[in-house]
Amino acid sequence: MSTRTPRIQMLLTGSELMSGDTVDSNSAMVGQRLGELGITLERKITLDDDLDALTAAIREISTYADILIVNGGLGPTVDDLTAAALAAAAGVALGENPRALAHIESWCEQRQIPMDAANRKQAQLPAGSDILPNITGSAVGIAMTLGDCRVLCTPGVPGELRNMLDSIIDDIRHRHPDLQPRHILRLQTFGLGESAAQQCVADALPDWPQQVSLGFRAGAPQMEIKLTAASDADPGLQAGCREQLESLFGDHIIGEGNATLAARVLQLLSDRGRQITTAESCTGGLIASMLTRVPGSSAAFEAGFVTYSNRMKRDLLAVPEALLEAHGAVSEPVVRAMAEGALARSGADMAIAVSGIAGPDGGSAEKPVGTVWIAWGSAADLHSCGLCWPVERSLFQTMVAAAGLDLIRRQLLALPPLSWQAERRRIDATR
Amino acid sequence: MSTRTPRIQMLLTGSELMSGDTVDSNSAMVGQRLGELGITLERKITLDDDLDALTAAIREISTYADILIVNGGLGPTVDDLTAAALAAAAGVALGENPRALAHIESWCEQRQIPMDAANRKQAQLPAGSDILPNITGSAVGIAMTLGDCRVLCTPGVPGELRNMLDSIIDDIRHRHPDLQPRHILRLQTFGLGESAAQQCVADALPDWPQQVSLGFRAGAPQMEIKLTAASDADPGLQAGCREQLESLFGDHIIGEGNATLAARVLQLLSDRGRQITTAESCTGGLIASMLTRVPGSSAAFEAGFVTYSNRMKRDLLAVPEALLEAHGAVSEPVVRAMAEGALARSGADMAIAVSGIAGPDGGSAEKPVGTVWIAWGSAADLHSCGLCWPVERSLFQTMVAAAGLDLIRRQLLALPPLSWQAERRRIDATR
Repeated sequence: MSTRTPRIQMLLTGSELMSGDTVDSNSAMVGQRLGELGITLERKITLDDDLDALTAAIREISTYADILIVNGGLGPTVDDLTAAALAAAAGVALGENPRALAHIESWCEQRQIPMDAANRKQAQLPAGSDILPNITGSAVGIAMTLGDCRVLCTPGVPGELRNMLDSIIDDIRHRHPDLQPRHILRLQTFGLGESAAQQCVADALPDWPQQVSLGFRAGAPQMEIKLTAASDADPGLQAGCREQLESLFGDHIIGEGNATLAARVLQLLSDRGRQITTAESCTGGLIASMLTRVPGSSAAFEAGFVTYSNRMKRDLLAVPEALLEAHGAVSEPVVRAMAEGALARSGADMAIAVSGIAGPDGGSAEKPVGTVWIAWGSAADLHSCGLCWPVERSLFQTMVAAAGLDLIRRQLLALPPLSWQAERRRIDATR
Repeated sequence: MSTRTPRIQMLLTGSELMSGDTVDSNSAMVGQRLGELGITLERKITLDDDLDALTAAIREISTYADILIVNGGLGPTVDDLTAAALAAAAGVALGENPRALAHIESWCEQRQIPMDAANRKQAQLPAGSDILPNITGSAVGIAMTLGDCRVLCTPGVPGELRNMLDSIIDDIRHRHPDLQPRHILRLQTFGLGESAAQQCVADALPDWPQQVSLGFRAGAPQMEIKLTAASDADPGLQAGCREQLESLFGDHIIGEGNATLAARVLQLLSDRGRQITTAESCTGGLIASMLTRVPGSSAAFEAGFVTYSNRMKRDLLAVPEALLEAHGAVSEPVVRAMAEGALARSGADMAIAVSGIAGPDGGSAEKPVGTVWIAWGSAADLHSCGLCWPVERSLFQTMVAAAGLDLIRRQLLALPPLSWQAERRRIDATR
């Protein structure tokens, strides 16, 4: 047991990681969990399924690291070499581990499959090692101490690793009881850019406390703001920082943790006993899909319309032919008529309607690719705006769908309809 | 210049890679491109932005590797240390590189922004190094030879790396002219499992030639089969292997390269001058969204219906109330009525309709979570089947949407409606 922050490295193994057939998300999962403990990974090494290279790496790292997390190579095939490499590095033999064997037997029994030689191989562990339980897969994890280094071997299947991480974290905390876990708060935002937000904090909050580190991670469509504070920092400090961010970015903040625009909108609607409908042209069903991906969405969503052609805007949503002829499908009058039609047909209280040019074809000088009109609100309180996002088709669809959801969120919360960022993209005055 | 296969390693740098805030997809991109050259990455090392650790790693790797590809750390901030670490490892000074400076000047000019000190820092390269052009970003790449090792430093922004990879590949081929690029053929499939497909090949094609390696990569919803052959292999060999796979998995193969079910369905419809519509309950717009993500989808898709509630199935798709009462929304008669209603309302030639229980709530003993009915076809030739996929909500939606598209694909190609795999999931007889 040590009072300094432990040195932790990862060793990843698998030919699919070297060929690029698999993108490694496992080490990011481990890095995030270690971050909550206040530990930063020191190094990651990724190797092919090569016994000598794996053995040499385990031996070398174990001479100075406190903890080595090995990922992959625990499966039943001949390419799975982690147990053999660990045994070779430790200078011990492989032998059948009774607890590992019992796990595999019960795993096969539950699935009503006979235990074959390949399964049985997974019970061959280095002498003197312990198992780390695997609640989903056939391969147990392996824990073993080499000199002063704790080696923890974990499965490559992401779901199995995720399930094993709690016992890994427990193992590390048990050996390093003085670790000071960090308080991490994640805020989900929409309509903010990474560098602009960073600059905004630097300009508006020059006295930001050093004890609370601030990270920005841009995704499409949301951006995450991460506040990290040491567990021994003043508890009021992080809360104070959060308040400062809320007054700075307030109406951009959707929620905490894994909050999404769609889930937030559905919750606001449910709280108010309202129903929403969608009328989509350029997003082609994406807004409805984002809403219905959320469990329980049926409480506030009954129907959506995908009207891709002019004829369907007319036949399904009663958009007047005259409007289509006079203004074109991508226009303010048409998108408002789409919203009105969807409200009338579905009986919902609120609607989001979008019509735009997703590209790559279909643009013109007057209405270039990326032009979109959005209408949102209720029949009595319907709003609309035109924006231009000249980006790749699927990113355009994602951003427009998110913008529609955000505009409804703002209306439900009585916030101003457009952020300073979206403002820059506006192409016309709204009503 | 060498005639053996070069030893290539990668060094990745960035605190976001250690914290897990970013998942590294760059090394997979590099691994795939090297695979086409017939080279397998020997090792990847990932480090924090730490000058000493980066310098030591570059120095160590350069003593035995032929090529070291460094990724990240070329930006304008103080955390970007790649040039400094390379200079330290080489024992040379950093100095302003005229070609790098010219690039940055022109980059700033194009964006009409003044060149600041941070931008100018990116022109500080190790003495004796060359630049690798960056057509999109401000940071040039760096090429330098340390002893016998070629060190190639690349930007961490994925799009910039992608654009730089052609010149990296050229640099490697120039120094290793005897490399034998591989022929790689990727086939996209639906309805096949990874291990079952592997077993199927082992059983049915025992004489599979050693010169053509076979890889299976399961994704949701598609699985990729990768055939890799040396460039000096008999050209007929890979073609022959492909034919064997086609006779084995024929109706599961969607197409080559990046083919998707939605794009394939749209192409088959366009070829036949037909239109498709969708009537979605449990997939909530996902099928329409998958179709409209494909550029040019308007040629074969005009309208889709998301009817999440019973009332909307009745009001929008004219599903008889009596059917809903007698059989429930998740039933064969209702899903067929949904398809018929969507065909009638949209005027399309073909429809996909789905109604199921995505969960986590809403299941019963008779109709557990994962139960789904799908109807597909034209008014004159309408089919239906019931399946059960008891998986997590969003995976269920993805798999059901893909199954619907695959059933239409099979009908358009006059293939049998269900594969042996889906057959196992059937819950009732079809008409």
